Amino acid sequence: MSSIEQEFLLPHIARMTGYIPGEQPKGQKFVKLNTNENPYPPSSLVLERLKAACDGDLRLYPDAAASEVCRRLAEQFAVPAQQILVGNGSDELLNTAMRCFVGTGDRVVFPTPTYPYYAKLVELQNATAVTVDFDESFALPGDALTTAAGKLTLVANPNSPSGTLASTDELAALAAAVPGLLLIDEAYVDFSDGGCIELVETYPNLIVVRTMSKSFSLAGMRIGFCFASPEVTAAMRKVKEHYNIGSLSQVAAAAALDDVQTMHANARRVCQTRSRLSEALGELGFHVWPSAGNFVLARVPDGRAAQLYAMLRDRGVLVRYFEVPRLRDCLRISVGTEEEIDILLRELDRCIGRGRAR
Amino acid sequence: MSSIEQEFLLPHIARMTGYIPGEQPKGQKFVKLNTNENPYPPSSLVLERLKAACDGDLRLYPDAAASEVCRRLAEQFAVPAQQILVGNGSDELLNTAMRCFVGTGDRVVFPTPTYPYYAKLVELQNATAVTVDFDESFALPGDALTTAAGKLTLVANPNSPSGTLASTDELAALAAAVPGLLLIDEAYVDFSDGGCIELVETYPNLIVVRTMSKSFSLAGMRIGFCFASPEVTAAMRKVKEHYNIGSLSQVAAAAALDDVQTMHANARRVCQTRSRLSEALGELGFHVWPSAGNFVLARVPDGRAAQLYAMLRDRGVLVRYFEVPRLRDCLRISVGTEEEIDILLRELDRCIGRGRAR
Repeated sequence: MSSIEQEFLLPHIARMTGYIPGEQPKGQKFVKLNTNENPYPPSSLVLERLKAACDGDLRLYPDAAASEVCRRLAEQFAVPAQQILVGNGSDELLNTAMRCFVGTGDRVVFPTPTYPYYAKLVELQNATAVTVDFDESFALPGDALTTAAGKLTLVANPNSPSGTLASTDELAALAAAVPGLLLIDEAYVDFSDGGCIELVETYPNLIVVRTMSKSFSLAGMRIGFCFASPEVTAAMRKVKEHYNIGSLSQVAAAAALDDVQTMHANARRVCQTRSRLSEALGELGFHVWPSAGNFVLARVPDGRAAQLYAMLRDRGVLVRYFEVPRLRDCLRISVGTEEEIDILLRELDRCIGRGRAR
Repeated sequence: MSSIEQEFLLPHIARMTGYIPGEQPKGQKFVKLNTNENPYPPSSLVLERLKAACDGDLRLYPDAAASEVCRRLAEQFAVPAQQILVGNGSDELLNTAMRCFVGTGDRVVFPTPTYPYYAKLVELQNATAVTVDFDESFALPGDALTTAAGKLTLVANPNSPSGTLASTDELAALAAAVPGLLLIDEAYVDFSDGGCIELVETYPNLIVVRTMSKSFSLAGMRIGFCFASPEVTAAMRKVKEHYNIGSLSQVAAAAALDDVQTMHANARRVCQTRSRLSEALGELGFHVWPSAGNFVLARVPDGRAAQLYAMLRDRGVLVRYFEVPRLRDCLRISVGTEEEIDILLRELDRCIGRGRAR
């Protein structure tokens, strides 16, 4: 540790390793199935409105309240606008919730394995992560999560990387039982038949977070939104960066909400391809968890997932490998286009054939 | 306070009032001189590149490191890329620095009056704001700032709302003297002949923050950047949102750096108009501090600034009024186009004439 770090850096920040996002390769063309991006482009309405908004008015500050986006969300989800907040990606909203509700040493509970960013958020607040292991089926461990008694409980639903979905009834029971706040991260929910925004009316301790990065094909625009009680959103509004959403992101978000049909059509195509992918992986000997997201978690037949990841990468196919407990023998594969999945399956067949021959 | 707040909200967040940004009026057309936006549009290269980038690739995550922006900044400012960080506006960088270096109760020192956001950042970290009053001339109170012994010292240079500029020598002396980190917020520096990025090489405790919101006419795109020692930027890189800068913002920032000539030309025009505005305000009986920003602070002849603000607003001219000590008799007026300043001066003449007649 350098003298600068010793002298100036907060100890809990010095201890952090930093979050490593999935690789975004430049130059070389990959079949990119590693960061759960949508393989289809966003609505053409989004692109048209964006182009039209690339003008001199970008010299002006954006609307700090993202009113046009909130108005549409309020309409479409039948939630009052004051109970909605828009963020610079759902990550900013998770971060903001942590800063509002989680102090030094406070317990933050979440089932694992899940989105690694949650652990970073806990470290940032110098809070205490209390993790509960999912069982082999990735069923929501509701009782254990409740007993863990978090100031904040985080549940990704569908969960990543497993793709598994808890029911709205299970989440309602959890919201009623936990002593603190419950944040449901619905980043992938449009690829499922779930979704629990309706519960916000009943449970004032519930925060439901969504994103336009996946189903709306807008990861590049950084747009998240959340629903919660008026008191919770009022607090988060104080803490968020005031000009957190740029003008073009607001244009994109509003346009995307004016054409949800395209999002739904893309989500349906992804779900169809997901079925085919899951089945084909099963035939190749993988164990595949039932996925409600735009990705599948697949246990590699011989368990040598790191090797298979590297072999696929050499062949131009990028998937995600997590070198952590429970996932060392698995790959997470984003659902691409039909053509991309054809290539993946062809290369997998070759790799696994070779692996078996060795 | 509601039961939700009592039960769940961290006390220091509950105490916060929240930052109120300058008004962004919708609908009614104002001569908008209240939030220090650039009256001229960004470079046409920025708008062209933006339009070209509004395509299906927005489905992909942005580059978490904003490498293309950092590469250009490294070239133009002759600072290694590892010592540069790009933020979602300079606000995110200030916020990130606070989270890295300022813990509960730590002293954060800054001269006042200044950018009100600094106080919000201190509240967010539950730290202790130690303010040092500027004297009537707004000269940098270097000794008092040093004696105040902050874990972090914040200096806006040029300062807002005064527009006054401290010299690079004064800032170097301050960097050498303070016991903690010194953050210089150079949001307005392109309208001055100052700038102290060169000091980063000498002072490992120095962070210099800039933004594209003002001189580059890109407030809508949320782009800030900072320079510091490798240890400081490494820490901040761990704490920032990983995908903090959207793809289009990265395109805009890179293009803006490929055409700094337009920025400089716009800044020159603003400075010329600033001279004329300052002089004309003086003739109308205002006291105007010498400004190195794209705005001027002007003390209203009869001291009734709130009334004058309201009268101007009624006449379609929006300026900034801060209802805080030292500023109650002043208006901060952003430098608009020549035509906008003509309108302002005409309306001021009428208002002040009326005011005098009463």
